[in-house]
Amino acid sequence: MTSAKRPDASRRNEKSRQAILTATRELIAETGYAKVSIEAIAARAGVGKQTIYRWWSSKGAVVFDSILDLSGPVDDAVVLPDTGDLETDLKQVLRATVAEFADAAFEAPIRALTVEIATDPELAALYQRSMATPMDEAKKARLRSAQEAGQLSPDADLDLVLSLLNSPVFERWLMRGGPLDDAFADGVVEAVVRAFSPGP
Amino acid sequence: MTSAKRPDASRRNEKSRQAILTATRELIAETGYAKVSIEAIAARAGVGKQTIYRWWSSKGAVVFDSILDLSGPVDDAVVLPDTGDLETDLKQVLRATVAEFADAAFEAPIRALTVEIATDPELAALYQRSMATPMDEAKKARLRSAQEAGQLSPDADLDLVLSLLNSPVFERWLMRGGPLDDAFADGVVEAVVRAFSPGP
Repeated sequence: MTSAKRPDASRRNEKSRQAILTATRELIAETGYAKVSIEAIAARAGVGKQTIYRWWSSKGAVVFDSILDLSGPVDDAVVLPDTGDLETDLKQVLRATVAEFADAAFEAPIRALTVEIATDPELAALYQRSMATPMDEAKKARLRSAQEAGQLSPDADLDLVLSLLNSPVFERWLMRGGPLDDAFADGVVEAVVRAFSPGP
Repeated sequence: MTSAKRPDASRRNEKSRQAILTATRELIAETGYAKVSIEAIAARAGVGKQTIYRWWSSKGAVVFDSILDLSGPVDDAVVLPDTGDLETDLKQVLRATVAEFADAAFEAPIRALTVEIATDPELAALYQRSMATPMDEAKKARLRSAQEAGQLSPDADLDLVLSLLNSPVFERWLMRGGPLDDAFADGVVEAVVRAFSPGP
């Protein structure tokens, strides 16, 4: 993503990149996705517009990177740890999600962005392509290793498994439908693992 | 809700009530919850403001009634049929939800309202109290009869069961996360029934 030629330039680039991502998150939370502009992000981050356009092709792209940046890079080990025990690993991930939703610095921009995605079909398509699908693919890699280890039915529809794992926490958070805590996260994981157990 | 003294007055009241509910749904879809006013609803429905205030205490109350009106009255038999077979009944309900989300006349006001609920904590509390909780209680009555019939574990946490049933369809609809069809509805129901089966 960067084209650093010397260590100093690389450090400057990383500092600019972080300033841009932070400014983007702050602006989404303050004004909503629709009102955020590349100009406003550049001004808040103290960089030129061309610096942003050098690294990102559109406002949507920088916005989704700013959210992904909160959770660290999307790679299999980060999205789903692999201790060898599926239930333990899924509980860790869902508890981490619950903790993120309890953190206002994370929650406010995600809520504002979720509302925009729900309203704008084009933004929803960009979200599915650049954020949801890569996350789901990383999680499916972990589910496939559980299938190989005999902890998940080989016939399980992995899209359905992910939907059942993710959506109860999502809806309870978004609609403020009840306590969002570790007990709820654990209950969801236990039910899903039972539903897709390989059987006797 | 009405105070009709003669059949003619009762018919006029019902006609006004329906005009108010229809006008409310149209205005939510067109302008969003925040911009809808009792004045605008009255003007669109061709009634006086006092007619609305006679039957509803607030804008939120008439808005939720306008949505509930689409699905018919909340009573146990409508929310969850009881053929004696839980899986059959749950599939019927979830397929009906999928069909509602495929209908623009239903989908547009619900989407606009969902976005407002996600944005406004007070509206979320009103939604949980006046809409989500009564619907959930009616569904729990059906789940309890399934527990008595030995089709659902007596230990099942019914709030968790409902969350796992409802939220996959909700999230896939709201975030446009994939095909929302009978096959998906059936897959969710089969997984949840497996997860909470009473066991051998």
